Amino acid sequence: MPESFGNRLRERLLEAGPLCVGIDPSRDVVRAWEREDTVEGAEYVALTTLEATIGVAAVIKCQVAFFERFGSPGVAVLERVLREARAAELVVIADAKRGDVSSTSEGYAQAWLESASPLCVDAVTLTPYLGVGALEPFFRVAASNARGVFVLAATSNVEGRTLQSARTSEHDRVETMVLREVARRNEDAEGLGSVGAVLGATRERPEFDLTTLKGPFLVPGVGAQGASPTDVAHLFTGCVDGSVTVNVARASDELRAAL
Amino acid sequence: MPESFGNRLRERLLEAGPLCVGIDPSRDVVRAWEREDTVEGAEYVALTTLEATIGVAAVIKCQVAFFERFGSPGVAVLERVLREARAAELVVIADAKRGDVSSTSEGYAQAWLESASPLCVDAVTLTPYLGVGALEPFFRVAASNARGVFVLAATSNVEGRTLQSARTSEHDRVETMVLREVARRNEDAEGLGSVGAVLGATRERPEFDLTTLKGPFLVPGVGAQGASPTDVAHLFTGCVDGSVTVNVARASDELRAAL
Repeated sequence: MPESFGNRLRERLLEAGPLCVGIDPSRDVVRAWEREDTVEGAEYVALTTLEATIGVAAVIKCQVAFFERFGSPGVAVLERVLREARAAELVVIADAKRGDVSSTSEGYAQAWLESASPLCVDAVTLTPYLGVGALEPFFRVAASNARGVFVLAATSNVEGRTLQSARTSEHDRVETMVLREVARRNEDAEGLGSVGAVLGATRERPEFDLTTLKGPFLVPGVGAQGASPTDVAHLFTGCVDGSVTVNVARASDELRAAL
Repeated sequence: MPESFGNRLRERLLEAGPLCVGIDPSRDVVRAWEREDTVEGAEYVALTTLEATIGVAAVIKCQVAFFERFGSPGVAVLERVLREARAAELVVIADAKRGDVSSTSEGYAQAWLESASPLCVDAVTLTPYLGVGALEPFFRVAASNARGVFVLAATSNVEGRTLQSARTSEHDRVETMVLREVARRNEDAEGLGSVGAVLGATRERPEFDLTTLKGPFLVPGVGAQGASPTDVAHLFTGCVDGSVTVNVARASDELRAAL
């Protein structure tokens, strides 16, 4: 059995630093690169960003929406990007935000976490609106393939605040409940667990003690969305070194030096 | 401008009855049909189910996960199913449960709701963990293309209860807050609005007055998941005729007669 996702990720983050470079060929980005907004334009942006990442960061995060918008030809481009990223030995996260009732989560887990799938990645992001329990097939398939997941807990956008800070019948915030359920699934892990959480850097320190997650954090919100490297350092004080990966739109030297 | 999604859907449901037939080529279903679990097996199940639906129900719902699990070839099969369903003049819902921050929601809206996309459908299901406000690009793209959406409110699975019944700072349940925000986006609609909600039939009547949604309901949970046609009738008492579509795994005569 290969090493677990959590430990592999940590090793790479300790070597290369916390940056996770976003591969985000949105309509706006493709046009800003002065390409036509076609599947070829998106492929150019994605592969060029990927190439620029090699040697700079250990982790990439592909935003699935920006490939899916072209239908199956776009998904085929994503598959090519994933293949090339694997060949370059990058840790690859699919930012897919999938999640459904468990029988359907099973289908998505086959797509993103089974080794035979052309969309197979090291880890996939998940959304828990149907309950963390409904994501169980992802946890199971991830564990048996030495892969991982990141469950959305507190996101960096303001529109998510009302829902994520609502109080459950146990008086936990929704985000706290999610983090607690994630932590429970890392209890038996040796080293860093493979069930991670997405926690926006634009957020105040949550009620949940982040040092007890025993899994990795994926952190959006730095740069364009307004959070600074200092915000990140503050938010994750006391967390295990190499357990936090910070997503940036591109691997700027400035951000790299600061993190 | 063609007629709005809400009004088109209602017209078809009044003609043909409330059934929405699920196209769900999961691993288990493909094997139960005694086919190999390959992309060809899934295609066979999907197209055969589609064919059996014509003349029986007006609406189909394709579960995207069960196509995505084969990567781009699976997505290409979904595109074929969507094309054939459109040719048969069925109302087509993609059960994709997409949703992200607004810039990413924009990408998903392009995939599922822009007419030029090979994945274009009449309506797509959305998940509101990042806030209903983050789904705004879907509402906008849907409106300008005479298409629609269904936002998850209360789902039929038990694992979702803790989150969906958590109380916001306004003392609303999360599901109530979602339904309220959906209703707000139908305020100016003529006839039935095009912003719908997913409401599981296994649920008790929610605190939100469903008769005020002014949009369509997509209702899972009947049959395999335990709810009966009587549960559905009870839940939606007083709602506009033709505003409720009930998803079933297949269009059985028994269910058809009961609904």
